[in-house]
Amino acid sequence: MKVVVNLKAYPCDPVEVATAAREVSDASGVDIAVAPQAAHLERVAETGVETWAQHVGPVEHGSHTGSTLAEAAAEAGATGTLLNHSERRLKLADIDGALDAAERADLETCVCANNPDQIGAVAALGPDAVAVEPPELIGTGTPVSKADPDVVTDAVEAAEAVDDSVAVYCGAGISTGEDLTSARELGAEGVLLASGVAKADDPKAALEDLVAPL
Amino acid sequence: MKVVVNLKAYPCDPVEVATAAREVSDASGVDIAVAPQAAHLERVAETGVETWAQHVGPVEHGSHTGSTLAEAAAEAGATGTLLNHSERRLKLADIDGALDAAERADLETCVCANNPDQIGAVAALGPDAVAVEPPELIGTGTPVSKADPDVVTDAVEAAEAVDDSVAVYCGAGISTGEDLTSARELGAEGVLLASGVAKADDPKAALEDLVAPL
Amino acid sequence: MKVVVNLKAYPCDPVEVATAAREVSDASGVDIAVAPQAAHLERVAETGVETWAQHVGPVEHGSHTGSTLAEAAAEAGATGTLLNHSERRLKLADIDGALDAAERADLETCVCANNPDQIGAVAALGPDAVAVEPPELIGTGTPVSKADPDVVTDAVEAAEAVDDSVAVYCGAGISTGEDLTSARELGAEGVLLASGVAKADDPKAALEDLVAPL
Amino acid sequence: MKVVVNLKAYPCDPVEVATAAREVSDASGVDIAVAPQAAHLERVAETGVETWAQHVGPVEHGSHTGSTLAEAAAEAGATGTLLNHSERRLKLADIDGALDAAERADLETCVCANNPDQIGAVAALGPDAVAVEPPELIGTGTPVSKADPDVVTDAVEAAEAVDDSVAVYCGAGISTGEDLTSARELGAEGVLLASGVAKADDPKAALEDLVAPL
Repeated sequence: MKVVVNLKAYPCDPVEVATAAREVSDASGVDIAVAPQAAHLERVAETGVETWAQHVGPVEHGSHTGSTLAEAAAEAGATGTLLNHSERRLKLADIDGALDAAERADLETCVCANNPDQIGAVAALGPDAVAVEPPELIGTGTPVSKADPDVVTDAVEAAEAVDDSVAVYCGAGISTGEDLTSARELGAEGVLLASGVAKADDPKAALEDLVAPL
Repeated sequence: MKVVVNLKAYPCDPVEVATAAREVSDASGVDIAVAPQAAHLERVAETGVETWAQHVGPVEHGSHTGSTLAEAAAEAGATGTLLNHSERRLKLADIDGALDAAERADLETCVCANNPDQIGAVAALGPDAVAVEPPELIGTGTPVSKADPDVVTDAVEAAEAVDDSVAVYCGAGISTGEDLTSARELGAEGVLLASGVAKADDPKAALEDLVAPL
Repeated sequence: MKVVVNLKAYPCDPVEVATAAREVSDASGVDIAVAPQAAHLERVAETGVETWAQHVGPVEHGSHTGSTLAEAAAEAGATGTLLNHSERRLKLADIDGALDAAERADLETCVCANNPDQIGAVAALGPDAVAVEPPELIGTGTPVSKADPDVVTDAVEAAEAVDDSVAVYCGAGISTGEDLTSARELGAEGVLLASGVAKADDPKAALEDLVAPL
Repeated sequence: MKVVVNLKAYPCDPVEVATAAREVSDASGVDIAVAPQAAHLERVAETGVETWAQHVGPVEHGSHTGSTLAEAAAEAGATGTLLNHSERRLKLADIDGALDAAERADLETCVCANNPDQIGAVAALGPDAVAVEPPELIGTGTPVSKADPDVVTDAVEAAEAVDDSVAVYCGAGISTGEDLTSARELGAEGVLLASGVAKADDPKAALEDLVAPL
């Protein structure tokens, strides 16, 4: 299982969460990546944790003021990126372009989508992984694996039907080890989570609890 | 073969083109639809031609000022709609939402995309048809079926691999009967064209030439 | 006072509201315009009511699939347009471009904005009118003239400081004659309203009540 | 005069340009800021140069995946930000929101605009500076101060008419000391430049040439 912790624009200390994630990853052997704001990529990468961007743009080197260039993210230490998060939805052609940009910069990719149909669609673009996140569950603390397990199994099926080399992650409402176990049982190979760790009083304890069943 | 004539925001007379299209369609038996500006839907539909919207939004009835409501397009006479044209690219989630809206309003759908990967992606969302239009060929007069025939056959394969009930149309640079024939030979079940008819001195003659080989 | 009734994407009958508006306008001498979906412009204009678009794009004739061309709106009967409604916010450069387009097509313009600073900003672009609509009051039934009268007087001041030929309209929560009177007393020369008329059981009675104090 | 060097998504070494800018600024006493990609803010700030973001979003701390949070930019070392560059145009309401965000994070602000009308509009939102950049001159090497000097004087007048505390910068095509002198003579208090320095073989020499007349 892969765990990606999305720090969004939360007021947490990104270095504290990153350090916790590295320690828990080292101790447990579970892959844990942390996705901070672009401006925090460098300090997060310096903790030694696997570092992801929250977004990269569909652009190459050139006149693109205010973009997030995949190469710049990589130079700051990112080795992966989320794309098309429900808080940063992209045009279809730009998901395709951003995947090209990520590949150029050697970034692992996970494209988010709202439902199994859209999971099939993004799987057709050849990312490393897709994450199913019903928008109505994001930030609720109710895991999609419990609220609507069929969404996860349908997403796994939709991705497999299109390209069975694409991993399916499960987002929205994941926070405990039990959530992670259910997600795995439904066929997910990873989880995306945010507030459950980033807003926890003790992010390290939250991560330890999360990976305990693995 | 289905022919969709996209009037874009061209300075042509939409009623003249629509009347020509209806006459050529009646005489030849070929399905020809005309897609005018939303504000022209009603006058185009009154000619009796098959009328399409150029776009509908991913919205339901409600507080959506300045949107293009699928139901309003249908009430004005539209029976189909283009979506995600390269001049009106949509977020992936909005293509999905607009397809739902179109289905609610009984509109036939054709989703445009730039390349075979994106064709596979939009086919996964269940439209009636997809149209492959390499942006670099739009408006050039060089048909994609000649400039890059592999794009068409790859698009047909990509759509079939995902959902073989989805028809593939061929856009970009189509203007003559020969272009239409090549498109059909490459597996396309329809063509999307614009300037070749809408900017022709004699739109009716242009359409007659187009459908002559059928 | 000018009254603009925005039909948004409401499930109302646009012709019924337009007919009511024309009758009340004729009987009262108050300018009442109706702004329907683009696809409904033609049937609304045929009632003889003053007809506005809800939006026009910053485009000229050309390759702009899915746009709302000012000329097409005018050909369908529009003589004015809203711009930058909070449900259809535009980039600053596009407000500027859409104002150029509206002028080219002889459309009267009213640019919406959220607060007095933004009212000053859009006034600098030279529209005929600006409308202040605090987003948090839209659709609430609580008129901005009552909930936050300073917003209206500050908006009037902000517009005057930049260009005193720009009229200020008052939007958000207006539904009764009393609301309209307060708006006028605060310096507004028009009102923008939507659900108060479009969702009324009897749109004509609602409009009669609205203009009664004038 | 203030000089802001926008590194866009250019393939230059941001630390090399930043170091050159700091050295030339120290030697000449001219304020020179460098605006890199968000992911490069930290390494640029570490050179001691005045560091600007190319963009910040209209958001506060919270659920905004893939945004550029003003506070994160500030934590990485930014003390200023560009906004609404022609390559990253913003909705009017979002310029307003991003200015609030920048103020909250103590970032100096310079809002770009295309023409004098838009300069007046953005001046009404209360930024520290505005920059006039006719899009057709960006990247041409032809300075706006030479190609169209009236645009600069009209922009200065438009800003002054709205708020005379707002400085006007001059962008588009600036690369030499002569360009900078003409800009100052036309009333500009700063210049925005990009390729002239970022793509120079010797960025330090380019900057020395630029500030020589001051």
